[in-house]
Amino acid sequence: MQEIIKRVIIENVQPEIDGSLFPIRRAVGERVHVKAGIFVDGHDRLAAQLLYRKKEEQNWRLRSMRLLGNDLWDASFKVNETGVYYYTVHAWIDRFGSWAEGILKKYEAGLNISVELLEGARLIETAATRAPKEARDELQVKARFLKSDERTLDRLNLVTNPEFMEQMDAYPDLESLSEYEKILEVNVEPLRARFSAWYEMFPRSCADGPDVHGTFKDCINRLPYVSEMGFDVLYLPPIHPIGFRHRKGKNNAPQGGPKDPGSPWAIGSSKGGHRSVHPRLGTMADFEELVREARRREIEIAIDMAFQCSPDHPYVQEHPQWFRKRPDGSIQYAENPPKKYEDIYPFDFESADVEALCRELLEVLRFWIGKGIRTFRVDNPHTKPLRFWEWLFKQIKADHPEVIFLAEAFTRPKSMYRLAKGGFTQSYTYFTWRNLKWEIEQYLTELTQTEAAEFFWPNFWPNTPDILPEYLQVGGRAAFIIRLMLAATLSSNYGIYGPAFELLENEAKEPFSEEYLDSEKYEIRRWNLDQANSLKNIIRRINRIRKDNPALQQTRNLMFHEVDGEDIICFSKYTDDLKNVIVVAANLDPHHTHATWVHLPEKELGLEKDQSFQMHELIGDGRYLWSGGLNFIELNPEIMPVQIFRIRKRLRSEHDFDYFM
Amino acid sequence: MQEIIKRVIIENVQPEIDGSLFPIRRAVGERVHVKAGIFVDGHDRLAAQLLYRKKEEQNWRLRSMRLLGNDLWDASFKVNETGVYYYTVHAWIDRFGSWAEGILKKYEAGLNISVELLEGARLIETAATRAPKEARDELQVKARFLKSDERTLDRLNLVTNPEFMEQMDAYPDLESLSEYEKILEVNVEPLRARFSAWYEMFPRSCADGPDVHGTFKDCINRLPYVSEMGFDVLYLPPIHPIGFRHRKGKNNAPQGGPKDPGSPWAIGSSKGGHRSVHPRLGTMADFEELVREARRREIEIAIDMAFQCSPDHPYVQEHPQWFRKRPDGSIQYAENPPKKYEDIYPFDFESADVEALCRELLEVLRFWIGKGIRTFRVDNPHTKPLRFWEWLFKQIKADHPEVIFLAEAFTRPKSMYRLAKGGFTQSYTYFTWRNLKWEIEQYLTELTQTEAAEFFWPNFWPNTPDILPEYLQVGGRAAFIIRLMLAATLSSNYGIYGPAFELLENEAKEPFSEEYLDSEKYEIRRWNLDQANSLKNIIRRINRIRKDNPALQQTRNLMFHEVDGEDIICFSKYTDDLKNVIVVAANLDPHHTHATWVHLPEKELGLEKDQSFQMHELIGDGRYLWSGGLNFIELNPEIMPVQIFRIRKRLRSEHDFDYFM
Repeated sequence: MQEIIKRVIIENVQPEIDGSLFPIRRAVGERVHVKAGIFVDGHDRLAAQLLYRKKEEQNWRLRSMRLLGNDLWDASFKVNETGVYYYTVHAWIDRFGSWAEGILKKYEAGLNISVELLEGARLIETAATRAPKEARDELQVKARFLKSDERTLDRLNLVTNPEFMEQMDAYPDLESLSEYEKILEVNVEPLRARFSAWYEMFPRSCADGPDVHGTFKDCINRLPYVSEMGFDVLYLPPIHPIGFRHRKGKNNAPQGGPKDPGSPWAIGSSKGGHRSVHPRLGTMADFEELVREARRREIEIAIDMAFQCSPDHPYVQEHPQWFRKRPDGSIQYAENPPKKYEDIYPFDFESADVEALCRELLEVLRFWIGKGIRTFRVDNPHTKPLRFWEWLFKQIKADHPEVIFLAEAFTRPKSMYRLAKGGFTQSYTYFTWRNLKWEIEQYLTELTQTEAAEFFWPNFWPNTPDILPEYLQVGGRAAFIIRLMLAATLSSNYGIYGPAFELLENEAKEPFSEEYLDSEKYEIRRWNLDQANSLKNIIRRINRIRKDNPALQQTRNLMFHEVDGEDIICFSKYTDDLKNVIVVAANLDPHHTHATWVHLPEKELGLEKDQSFQMHELIGDGRYLWSGGLNFIELNPEIMPVQIFRIRKRLRSEHDFDYFM
Repeated sequence: MQEIIKRVIIENVQPEIDGSLFPIRRAVGERVHVKAGIFVDGHDRLAAQLLYRKKEEQNWRLRSMRLLGNDLWDASFKVNETGVYYYTVHAWIDRFGSWAEGILKKYEAGLNISVELLEGARLIETAATRAPKEARDELQVKARFLKSDERTLDRLNLVTNPEFMEQMDAYPDLESLSEYEKILEVNVEPLRARFSAWYEMFPRSCADGPDVHGTFKDCINRLPYVSEMGFDVLYLPPIHPIGFRHRKGKNNAPQGGPKDPGSPWAIGSSKGGHRSVHPRLGTMADFEELVREARRREIEIAIDMAFQCSPDHPYVQEHPQWFRKRPDGSIQYAENPPKKYEDIYPFDFESADVEALCRELLEVLRFWIGKGIRTFRVDNPHTKPLRFWEWLFKQIKADHPEVIFLAEAFTRPKSMYRLAKGGFTQSYTYFTWRNLKWEIEQYLTELTQTEAAEFFWPNFWPNTPDILPEYLQVGGRAAFIIRLMLAATLSSNYGIYGPAFELLENEAKEPFSEEYLDSEKYEIRRWNLDQANSLKNIIRRINRIRKDNPALQQTRNLMFHEVDGEDIICFSKYTDDLKNVIVVAANLDPHHTHATWVHLPEKELGLEKDQSFQMHELIGDGRYLWSGGLNFIELNPEIMPVQIFRIRKRLRSEHDFDYFM
């Protein structure tokens, strides 16, 4: 019965994903802002505490919550280490505070408060029983004074001053304590999980000579190129031995010739499977050297986890029960009717031997972690059971919270989000196909301003080996720059598939197809990295701008601005303290010059009303003086379709107009 | 492990309140529309079922769910009886459907499907093992035919026709079945909980002569008056004996004279407490006669449950432990510092004897249910523990699901909603203070278009004995009509405190006060019901309109329309089948005539594009011909500030233009 009429109500503690089924996600050093509805019947004052701790810690750390109004309370805590944090909320009736509030009102209304003073004494006496010795004595003295016949006002002042109130807060009466019924969870990721620039590259295309199979050593030679452009993740498609049976030929021809290298996603041959490297790429030692050399240049090597097999994979012989048998005795290959992928056998997660399968895949991950890999790109995760990933990541993260996973989740929205809830650190998105202003604004608003931002960290890719979007096919060089700049500024995680991207490769296999002509998926390509029209310098520039400006190192801090028409999109990103504010204006039309008036919301961006400020354009290093109201901008795609401004406010000095922060 | 990789995901089953902590609310005969996100890895087709049952039933009833797109599924069920219903969702992989989809695509693409036909035969054979004898034989015949060397197309057609597909649906392979982890709850209320017109009246003011204390018999004589106005609930403030100690005088004077009747909310004297009736109102038999006579006129008597005591209440002697003692030995009276209510002792729900207290209050409710009462108005529920109500209603509803409770929840939003979640059928609202167009639209949008509509059923009161809003004080007769019409059309539950309302009582006790001058709370009033300017005929009219038009018998079906300026508000209510569509236009300015163009959304209201239709004005019985585009409306508050139209569409006949439905 006492439980039934517990008076204090705590409800709707936020953030909370699907009724606490899933954790929220934060990067090291970020804050978790917690809100809760907390209330009680009647007029009593409440006190509330946010409790949080690292999973491994025994004791809760405490933060007093603050009443924002209408029974909404808040507090925040900072997460300083990777791993799991817990948080929840407690609240109780603040007996002494309620009493003090009431007696002060009555005293001000000129009412007799003698009985109220006795009530106060009673509260202080019971608080004394909860206090350590010296405090106890002091409280008892106060209580006696309250019961004495000294002047009313003296007695009142003695115990309703802020200092004493705070002292009483240290010994609260917790009999009315209510605990929120759930303990919520934060997954804390390393900072690079939130801020990263990815470069995807086929190692076999890295050799110098024509028709030569590139190696890990060639990749090492390519590192300066990647590093100079400013990337911090170098992602390699699968590096394992490639199967022979049903090997595809150029341009996905059903039957490859003897010289075709095959698709790297057809994993496994007599040379080994998911724990081996393709002999033509080099040795495992070569690979480990690549990982080390890359790290020396502050580049992480990301490898591709494609949980599937070629018909020649050792698993097919050793664990035939992991694959589905068809009535004719053959093994079921991958298909999306009527498309067939005869060079790939999917695992059968409905196999009776699924436990061994899952444990083996876990060991594969552990194997590569052992080789120094901390970043995985996971191929087609939506074609494996969603709960399998949840289980897998829980195992890995327990020992290696620093490992991150990028989901190639090109699938419907609910699956895409569920994969993120279930543990994928980052995800591919629909950005690749969002070209119009309204659709970019709508999609980014969903990603950054809704609950999705609590668990879903986007990674924006203008192209991938599977996707050459129509916009890049037809838009020319300007289109590549627009998509690059949008990806790199809208999202703190982005990536390109190169050198196809910086070399403006835009020929599709056939009309209405997003497949590259002569795709590297099926053949070795030679790239002329010194091609005159290469975007490498522009890429270097934008990656530099990203590193220099913390506003571009997170994704949730996005604000769109109204501009004229549908051709120009304009938005800001900002740090919490507004010390770093970036304004991006992009002409989405790669063919024509467009112009617009831009009105920046002064208050939100920390600008003073009607004051002038400097707009420092970071790509071309131009400086413009803008002022509060409307400002004009014109973007010529043949020169530069995008401008990225850092707002520099005037330093408060009457001497020199030109000093800006 | 099998559990970990359960493939089918069911998430976000809606409606669900606070992660299934609370039930949703429906009236008998309404539907519950259930949506869920359901998906699986890969390309398999799914099947999903909505399960529902009355609490008392053993077996689930089933409804197939329908895929709306993007993994969102829906189905609905109807609740036919008061009480509790449960619902949840199951889903599984539709093996045969997946197979059929795939093989058809392959056949159309000209691929060899011989192995696929064998796979189909295998699926049919296993379905046969789940089927009853005769179906089993038939399925086995089909499977054999599939494995035969008959023509491919004949074999394919035999098993991919809709009829056979449906037959296979009857014996699904449920090995992949996933169950939603929660069972959700519906509280089903009687219809009158959703549609009611309340009239509040002080019985002691019902006598004919001056200075005579009205009785239950006088109330019986007043029934025709109430009934003619069209009300179906007659709500009486507390009818119990009134205490003497600290009895209030006229206009809340701290010391009443010997002739003052006291506040009915100061419950209890030597004549009895919460189970007694005030002797001056008559006997319990008189009261029971009133209940019977009212019911004969289809009026429910609602009584006031005010869980508090006067100092003279028998409980104070018999159960002193139910009240809080102050240090001077006195009992704590009610207060909201610096206001004091010395004539009222609140119960102390922190008493060690709280269990006995709660059980006694439960018995009080049961006592009045025994006297025939099915409708309770609960006084100040937010000053008693919120979980106490949850417990109380659970006890009552188990035996009496037809009993309804109106919460006088004039408190902050979170408490107000929590009381509704916890079991209050209806609630007072902020409508009483929402006078401007934008605030009415904003508030009603919250009440009708958000999750609140699932559990919170508003009851709109333009006035109460505690609240004479400023708008009524200064707006004259038109203000009363405006507020009446808004309450009666915006909300399917509404009430007035009469005869003060219909007699346009608008004098406040003092400036800036919402207290009535010479409030009936503290004295007996005489009312001249035949006063020339009485609104009784207008009230009769609107209550008739409400009874004739099902669109006005629910609250969620509300749509606001854009009109010019802030003076006129315009909205529609409609039945699901759009057979009954009501359009209300109200001039919110009681002093001046305003006009506007009105554009009705044709599609949403079931109108044909650019067709003319009849607007039948139901207050004045005028008929106007409107057509698709803009239509003009002018509202003169001195004549009638509100118009209520029923849209009458043209019958499809070329003979006569004037026939409308």
